[in-house]
Amino acid sequence: MQKIRIPETMTVAVLNDYSGVDAISIEQRPVPTPGRNEVLVKVAFAPINPSDLATLEGNYGFNDPTPIVPGGEGSGEVIAAGPGVMARYFLGKRVACTGWGTGGGVWSEYVVKSVKGGVLSLNKSLSLEQGAMSFINPLTASAFIDISKKGGHKAIVLTAAASSLGQKVNRLGRNEGIQIVNVVRRDAQVELLKAQGADIVLNSSNEGFQQQLYDVCNQTNAHLAFDAVAGPLTNQLLQAMPQNSKVTVFSALSRQAIQASPGVLIFENKSIDSFWLGPWISEQGIFKTMQLWKRAQKQIATHLKSDIRKIYPLQDVKEAIRDYKNQMTGGKILLRMS
Amino acid sequence: MQKIRIPETMTVAVLNDYSGVDAISIEQRPVPTPGRNEVLVKVAFAPINPSDLATLEGNYGFNDPTPIVPGGEGSGEVIAAGPGVMARYFLGKRVACTGWGTGGGVWSEYVVKSVKGGVLSLNKSLSLEQGAMSFINPLTASAFIDISKKGGHKAIVLTAAASSLGQKVNRLGRNEGIQIVNVVRRDAQVELLKAQGADIVLNSSNEGFQQQLYDVCNQTNAHLAFDAVAGPLTNQLLQAMPQNSKVTVFSALSRQAIQASPGVLIFENKSIDSFWLGPWISEQGIFKTMQLWKRAQKQIATHLKSDIRKIYPLQDVKEAIRDYKNQMTGGKILLRMS
Repeated sequence: MQKIRIPETMTVAVLNDYSGVDAISIEQRPVPTPGRNEVLVKVAFAPINPSDLATLEGNYGFNDPTPIVPGGEGSGEVIAAGPGVMARYFLGKRVACTGWGTGGGVWSEYVVKSVKGGVLSLNKSLSLEQGAMSFINPLTASAFIDISKKGGHKAIVLTAAASSLGQKVNRLGRNEGIQIVNVVRRDAQVELLKAQGADIVLNSSNEGFQQQLYDVCNQTNAHLAFDAVAGPLTNQLLQAMPQNSKVTVFSALSRQAIQASPGVLIFENKSIDSFWLGPWISEQGIFKTMQLWKRAQKQIATHLKSDIRKIYPLQDVKEAIRDYKNQMTGGKILLRMS
Repeated sequence: MQKIRIPETMTVAVLNDYSGVDAISIEQRPVPTPGRNEVLVKVAFAPINPSDLATLEGNYGFNDPTPIVPGGEGSGEVIAAGPGVMARYFLGKRVACTGWGTGGGVWSEYVVKSVKGGVLSLNKSLSLEQGAMSFINPLTASAFIDISKKGGHKAIVLTAAASSLGQKVNRLGRNEGIQIVNVVRRDAQVELLKAQGADIVLNSSNEGFQQQLYDVCNQTNAHLAFDAVAGPLTNQLLQAMPQNSKVTVFSALSRQAIQASPGVLIFENKSIDSFWLGPWISEQGIFKTMQLWKRAQKQIATHLKSDIRKIYPLQDVKEAIRDYKNQMTGGKILLRMS
């Protein structure tokens, strides 16, 4: 490999408190040095995901003392390795990296990551742009389909279905013969999903939505919903699905508490649980995770590709976040680190 | 057995619509005749249970077209049998009977019941008063302890814990070595349970309740809650219990929707499900149910006894219900049919 010069300082996005986008500042920090079984990644791109937005407001699962560096996933190149065979193996490789564990978030020009789960080799066919988005959404979509298949579900309900994740679930679902009952909240999102081949797309803002949802859940026999919205919509899902159904909440885009009618739970044997990618991956174990990762990488050319709406330089992270918050449907917003 | 004269008409409580206690009238109806595998029970006593109150307002699991006869359980004597060996077997026997299935509710001088699950022989040691309350609460309390033991729980949380059911769960729990974290809403209820030997009783109306609940759930390692209240209290339980905990909702005394913080569910792997006695019994199968029933009957002398606060004649059913609604803690209210 060619010798890459490592500078002494780097540009980093820093979240100074959990009050949201205004609490972000751009700072210069020393470039860290990888320790044993660690590598230094020169970060190329990082997407803005809903989980990043939640992190900025202290609503995500990790609330480390601020200041923190945000950024849940990204792509880059390993340009230095600490001691250890595995670290050396990654030297010069293009990788995807996650923002949790050793080294923290990836909205940074450089980041140190553990070779034990912090970096994953990118398939040669993948661009660094697609590689930056190859972990969270693709594995979440894969997980939903995996869970549905294991539970014997031929049809599932999905809310916020026009999101980048939602589009992936739809494509994988079609591929695997699982019918997706899509719930969105705007007509433009109905059109977007239908144009992509979705059969069933309901607009929750429409009058008559509850009855439509009830009818379609009972026609398709949908007993499982993946809910990214929470609030009163969770209760609408519970009421619409047949007996013995379950809503799995994985985000709270409504920013409201989950609501559920006790009678519907008690007398129709319904339940509410949750999904979080990190623990789900841990449960699968390393072998299954690598399988899923390899399969997801291959499918990024087809079912798991993410459209890109715009790329912002790291310095403009606040503008990028505001742009994303204004339009979370459709293509992703990427940060370019240098 | 002595020959018992069966009159042509009987006094019945009738619910004319699901608007509550005011929709009840007292009527005269023909005494029904048992068919094949059915018996005629001369009803002695019936309690007023929370599930009866829910039924009156259309908030219970069965919403048959009105008019209906309410009354979820009772005791009596089998005074006539339809064709069939099993029906004959019950002739002359003292029985407990449930208000669901064939024949409907038991707030009636006479009721026809199927011998396939509609009547159960009473242990000789039991009075008809105790026998009238020997099914719903004793089996629910037994179920909670059974579920807790199967799940390996050494401590559970219980809301509305000063109720007749709550007292039973406490006595069974002490007997089986399961610590009950009791939640009540008045100081008098704290005193009542402590006087009966409960170790941990928290008053949800107290300032500092949430922190107390958190502390005690984590000290006792309570991962399961049986919640009769719903509303915001469900969320307080979810927030107080350690990771991987579950709230099982079995009633909604608050008459409010269940509330739950999405973050607590997603990032602490918590969930909400429900308990309903009927389906739970069906799942156990007939052999296990008979075992539970026999054990519960024996335990009514000790852990599963119900205190009786007052007995009203059926004619005064409305007054009885109002009395019960004013004070659901402590002793039960019974209806006497003739």
